[in-house]
Amino acid sequence: MNRQYPRLVLRDSSFRSNARETISRCAACGIQVCGVIKGVNGLPEVARRFRECGVTQLGTSRLEQVERCRQAGIPGPYLLIRIPGPTELPELVRLCEMSLQSERTTLDLLEQECTRQEKSHAVIIMADLGDLREGYWDHEEMVQTCLYVERRLPHVHLSGVGVNLSCYGSVRATPEKMQMLLAIARRVEDAIGRPLEIVSGGATSSYPMIHTGTMPAGINHLRIGENILTAQDIADSWGIHDADYLRNDVFRLEAEVVEVKEKPTYPQGELGADAFGRKPVYEDRGLRLRAILALGRADVGDMETLRPTMPGVTVIGGSSDHCILDVTDAPQPVQVGDVLSFRLCYSHVLYATQRDDVPVVICP
Amino acid sequence: MNRQYPRLVLRDSSFRSNARETISRCAACGIQVCGVIKGVNGLPEVARRFRECGVTQLGTSRLEQVERCRQAGIPGPYLLIRIPGPTELPELVRLCEMSLQSERTTLDLLEQECTRQEKSHAVIIMADLGDLREGYWDHEEMVQTCLYVERRLPHVHLSGVGVNLSCYGSVRATPEKMQMLLAIARRVEDAIGRPLEIVSGGATSSYPMIHTGTMPAGINHLRIGENILTAQDIADSWGIHDADYLRNDVFRLEAEVVEVKEKPTYPQGELGADAFGRKPVYEDRGLRLRAILALGRADVGDMETLRPTMPGVTVIGGSSDHCILDVTDAPQPVQVGDVLSFRLCYSHVLYATQRDDVPVVICP
Repeated sequence: MNRQYPRLVLRDSSFRSNARETISRCAACGIQVCGVIKGVNGLPEVARRFRECGVTQLGTSRLEQVERCRQAGIPGPYLLIRIPGPTELPELVRLCEMSLQSERTTLDLLEQECTRQEKSHAVIIMADLGDLREGYWDHEEMVQTCLYVERRLPHVHLSGVGVNLSCYGSVRATPEKMQMLLAIARRVEDAIGRPLEIVSGGATSSYPMIHTGTMPAGINHLRIGENILTAQDIADSWGIHDADYLRNDVFRLEAEVVEVKEKPTYPQGELGADAFGRKPVYEDRGLRLRAILALGRADVGDMETLRPTMPGVTVIGGSSDHCILDVTDAPQPVQVGDVLSFRLCYSHVLYATQRDDVPVVICP
Repeated sequence: MNRQYPRLVLRDSSFRSNARETISRCAACGIQVCGVIKGVNGLPEVARRFRECGVTQLGTSRLEQVERCRQAGIPGPYLLIRIPGPTELPELVRLCEMSLQSERTTLDLLEQECTRQEKSHAVIIMADLGDLREGYWDHEEMVQTCLYVERRLPHVHLSGVGVNLSCYGSVRATPEKMQMLLAIARRVEDAIGRPLEIVSGGATSSYPMIHTGTMPAGINHLRIGENILTAQDIADSWGIHDADYLRNDVFRLEAEVVEVKEKPTYPQGELGADAFGRKPVYEDRGLRLRAILALGRADVGDMETLRPTMPGVTVIGGSSDHCILDVTDAPQPVQVGDVLSFRLCYSHVLYATQRDDVPVVICP
């Protein structure tokens, strides 16, 4: 199939610039960066660039992506950043050097699997500091688990401790949360009688502390994808509006116009539910010129947060296969066959890269 | 990669039952069914079953899926149910016998492409009856376009007219809307001097009229996927609660528990945004037993509408890779490694089938 549109365009110079700016600022704080490739479905082209820009590991939540990158010749170490289930352990040991962990049951099974494969595997034990995703809520139990790994699991190497924030629970990553993690790390070190290699302070949501210079000393590892891949969320979600060294044009989505017609803006008939079972609210703006793109929620998830690069064009909705635009105020007439482009959020890139009918094109 | 979970389980007997019940009821109303496979990413296993159950065409929005099905030996005709853009026309003519259309520019280019490939191609011209997605808002212009195809485009065959409802504009498909489409069909037939083969009354959202026996005579074609694949939306979205001949267990999603811990229900710390940039609201229900599944929004889109099959279990949230459950009231203890299952909406199946790390397993 010769698919031209929709397509994702990856701007090499912007990716490398974001990666270098982020990694060098982290390095200046004594922090190594795990380059997270799950947001781009483990694209080997992105993994290779992360490596060239100096990440310490490559991280993802899906083992298939590790396999794809290894087959493309991109060297590890690879860190699985989603705590694994028992059925994933054989492939985990085969494919990854390191993983995040939070259950003693799983650690015991991991030891068995390492023995079977005659390999060792490093783990970062996760603390829950209030975001209520994965990790130990009872920190004494966490220290005991670390001690258990250190003393009882010869093939499983306790590499460090970590936390995740601003994910499920929308809890901000703050210096206070980092101090809590450091206190846990010190308790673990006291218990095992040696320093930990890794104290992993979170993901892109912890990056604002690097930007503002408030990251406590001792945190030495972050797992970063979003900040480099889209750099949009650091402003939108984490309130950092002066990180002008980050570019938000790493990815651009281009899609083709399949219809342009003047139509009313308010649906006519008895209103029920839309294609996703929702009951949307519509604003009556009279007759407007509307364009439909061959692009939909199946490709990018949420449509309303797509940002058209052409001024005056707004997204007014869509379906699983359609994106509907108001093009009345576009500076030049929009016609069937025109290609319009969008700046993207992280979730758009996440969905688009997992489709086999959205090609990725790399430009300088 | 030997991926076991998450996985989609397709129950063959339920699919066939839904397909036969739906197709036979449509047939009794003089309506042929185009089996829509886009909701399952064009899975050849589903396309084959649609064919075996008697659909007249196979329909999808993505040409890649047609190619995959053709390569799997599943015969056409294939109908492209998303109006195509100019860049799609070469593959459209190569792969599909028929398409929905709404622009004269595209029809002219289609004629050129048919000439080049020495093939003919059938079209259904779309009317917009208020849902404000694709189609002619000006019905006189639509009649003129049909006449133009009939008289001027020798390789493009005018097969009929059609409409889409309850998609963008959430406009209900009603007998009145069908009468409007029939009136357009009669005007077109008067203009071209012959009967149209197809008057396509919409998608699953038009099926309630079949169920209630209110579909006007003369509508002879529907494009149905959802009704057969999940059968959930006919109740949830279109208000039909007595279609007990349709099964909602065609697809089941199974995922593995990776963590079980007692934790608070209200996040602790300064609240900002979650992983998708949203600011959710949390209910404080005290300490509860929570399970995390290796499954996330990347796999299924919306998490909150997943329906756990185990009573007492509720979905309380998630991230792109995690589904967080409250399992306090589960009838038996939930443990790491347990596999929990869910009934699905159409959009869950849409997203899950496009991932290469969610295997599809067929059971009797």
